[in-house]
Amino acid sequence: MPYVNIRITNEGVTKEQKQALIKGATDLLVDVLGKNPSTTVVVIDEVETDNWGVAGEQVTELRKKSS
Amino acid sequence: MPYVNIRITNEGVTKEQKQALIKGATDLLVDVLGKNPSTTVVVIDEVETDNWGVAGEQVTELRKKSS
Amino acid sequence: MPYVNIRITNEGVTKEQKQALIKGATDLLVDVLGKNPSTTVVVIDEVETDNWGVAGEQVTELRKKSS
Amino acid sequence: MPYVNIRITNEGVTKEQKQALIKGATDLLVDVLGKNPSTTVVVIDEVETDNWGVAGEQVTELRKKSS
Amino acid sequence: MPYVNIRITNEGVTKEQKQALIKGATDLLVDVLGKNPSTTVVVIDEVETDNWGVAGEQVTELRKKSS
Amino acid sequence: MPYVNIRITNEGVTKEQKQALIKGATDLLVDVLGKNPSTTVVVIDEVETDNWGVAGEQVTELRKKSS
Repeated sequence: MPYVNIRITNEGVTKEQKQALIKGATDLLVDVLGKNPSTTVVVIDEVETDNWGVAGEQVTELRKKSS
Repeated sequence: MPYVNIRITNEGVTKEQKQALIKGATDLLVDVLGKNPSTTVVVIDEVETDNWGVAGEQVTELRKKSS
Repeated sequence: MPYVNIRITNEGVTKEQKQALIKGATDLLVDVLGKNPSTTVVVIDEVETDNWGVAGEQVTELRKKSS
Repeated sequence: MPYVNIRITNEGVTKEQKQALIKGATDLLVDVLGKNPSTTVVVIDEVETDNWGVAGEQVTELRKKSS
Repeated sequence: MPYVNIRITNEGVTKEQKQALIKGATDLLVDVLGKNPSTTVVVIDEVETDNWGVAGEQVTELRKKSS
Repeated sequence: MPYVNIRITNEGVTKEQKQALIKGATDLLVDVLGKNPSTTVVVIDEVETDNWGVAGEQVTELRKKSS
């Protein structure tokens, strides 16, 4: 009965990509630990780039610099 | 000074239902552990059904199958 | 399929109290939102009092002052 | 490689204030623990006032009473 | 720069299994979303079975019933 | 009434360092957002280096390579 929380920046992730993350994380728990998939929960949080910081800077600004 | 985080799918929860969750969770901590309600915090996260998976499938799809 | 995370200080909570928290939180989601209890998950985190702060102070120190 | 999650109510926080939170939290980990800023992650969650409760009441209602 | 939190019950997970979870979750984010692995963080929380509830019951008790 | 969760690896953080993190994070919220310190909560989670991964590797192994 694992719980997996995937936090990513909100940058146009499609419904199909979310489905692939959910399926992949569930399979990972089944394959590595033999967990029951029917009680494995995956929750994806999409976070605005203004609200996510790395190295003391907002991702919004990091994206501008790297583009 | 407990912190309670309730994560649910975003499916039309009303303000009154949220108030009932907040009151109920606070009362639970007071009743079971004798915690001080004034420093008990409850935070509700509403998650899109595309972003919540069980058994490797998005809740969006599970809802279609069960309807 | 809600997920409830209860974070409390590690101060001698018994197994029976934990069971009461799990039962109470599950019942709350069933009563208020009509959720299915069989897929309702409750996780309790017990945090050392040195690691929990309120008003800028460790709970370890707050406990000494209030005793 | 610390991870800092700051959860606040959604009440008009500006981009500049978010940047100040990200910078301040990163500096704190560098100053106190000597962590590498380049792998320090800060994520800010803004939560609706209907979804945040203290003392068993929604912040939405607490704001009305205190105004 | 994703952050993945995997929460499982504390039931004898080995160091090698943890490594497989970390590698698998990182690869998943790289494969599905093209994320940079060097800033992908995975944190595993092992939770005591007394502290994890499903269907209103502690996993400790559920394990006894199913054995 | 902010909630700040600081997650770090469990590598000999002292009680005084934890107090400095709690004080610093609380001051940050007061200074940047004018929050009330008395309802600002800071929780520090110390995670074993086997349970923390970056770039697909356990911190335990990364530490060996860099030493």
